[in-house]
Amino acid sequence: MQLYIANQNYSTWSLRAWLIFDHYNLNANVIKLKLFTPDFYDTLAKVTPTAKVPTLVDGDVAVWDSLAILEYVNDAYLNGAAWPTSVAERALARAISAEMHSGFFNIRNELPMNCRAKRKLTLSNDALKDIARIDAIWSAQMEQYPEGWLFGEWSIADAMFAPVVLRAETYGIQLSEKAKQYQQRVLNSPSIQKWLAEASLEIDVVEEDEAGEPV
Amino acid sequence: MQLYIANQNYSTWSLRAWLIFDHYNLNANVIKLKLFTPDFYDTLAKVTPTAKVPTLVDGDVAVWDSLAILEYVNDAYLNGAAWPTSVAERALARAISAEMHSGFFNIRNELPMNCRAKRKLTLSNDALKDIARIDAIWSAQMEQYPEGWLFGEWSIADAMFAPVVLRAETYGIQLSEKAKQYQQRVLNSPSIQKWLAEASLEIDVVEEDEAGEPV
Repeated sequence: MQLYIANQNYSTWSLRAWLIFDHYNLNANVIKLKLFTPDFYDTLAKVTPTAKVPTLVDGDVAVWDSLAILEYVNDAYLNGAAWPTSVAERALARAISAEMHSGFFNIRNELPMNCRAKRKLTLSNDALKDIARIDAIWSAQMEQYPEGWLFGEWSIADAMFAPVVLRAETYGIQLSEKAKQYQQRVLNSPSIQKWLAEASLEIDVVEEDEAGEPV
Repeated sequence: MQLYIANQNYSTWSLRAWLIFDHYNLNANVIKLKLFTPDFYDTLAKVTPTAKVPTLVDGDVAVWDSLAILEYVNDAYLNGAAWPTSVAERALARAISAEMHSGFFNIRNELPMNCRAKRKLTLSNDALKDIARIDAIWSAQMEQYPEGWLFGEWSIADAMFAPVVLRAETYGIQLSEKAKQYQQRVLNSPSIQKWLAEASLEIDVVEEDEAGEPV
């Protein structure tokens, strides 16, 4: 299997797909492409119709889009283990994952992921509303699973929200006590530590993803 | 089960969730709310944290977001029948469904669904690119399944693309021969005929979804 990702410092969707491989220790050859270079477009054009990351190539199968990759890996290699076991929890996990997949545009526009930086910026009210909604999601799950991931065991929902955890760290976002607890849980996890270490070795700068003032 | 939807003339995401219930003849009490009325917000606020349609309430379980509802119904009531049976086809079906779920913004912005209308408008190059990509998806699948749905049997992917079929009809979008074949297949299906008949009885007008000049 080849997993095509982009700059670990910036690429939120890459992180989501990468996490399931790292968490379950699945073998994939990770191919990292530098965002917006000719090599990025040329390489992806050969394996996907959309030329976007992440893309997974598994023999004859190509899967583009992070959520589709997460579902595919869960389906083909994990016998469903990456969603909660109860139907009701699976429903909730899918609802919040889909919410992340198709929404939270104010966060996505105003707070680009930038793992190696510490920044401050002034957020719009709409971005603050997005953050409040995410805080509510994390807090509610921490009520239920004080020691665990969003649904106790690690799930695809944790992959979907991981980039928001890293943004909250970069921009010093204020979170409620319970949401902070989840943020810390994620930051301390071996997979995220590994991702951050790899991101910190990158030197390329993508201007449009550099927001805010250095702290 | 209660399925909350909005104006059938305009609400693309409602249509996607509604289709799986109609296609499989599943029992759900469909509650139609008028877009952007106080009743719309008040009713949804009681059952979902996002106050968006579609929302499905099934006993203690609430699922918002169309793709999550489709996955939930497939999971809880259809034993997986609403995705293709082969892992490879499931991967492709999920990739194109996710692509629709999180993208094609130019189509979404420039060509609002408006089932009862026939309109003409001038499209941006970006919207034309979106249409070309969708045409390529449909055509490739029709090569494979000349007589069937995108993957032979009806699947969640057909639900995800149904609103684009209706937009192509409203705005007289030029499609390739094979894509047109798929469009016709969808338009002739009993579920879509039923949806269009119900939409045609609506008299409410949502100004922001009225685009183009009458033909």
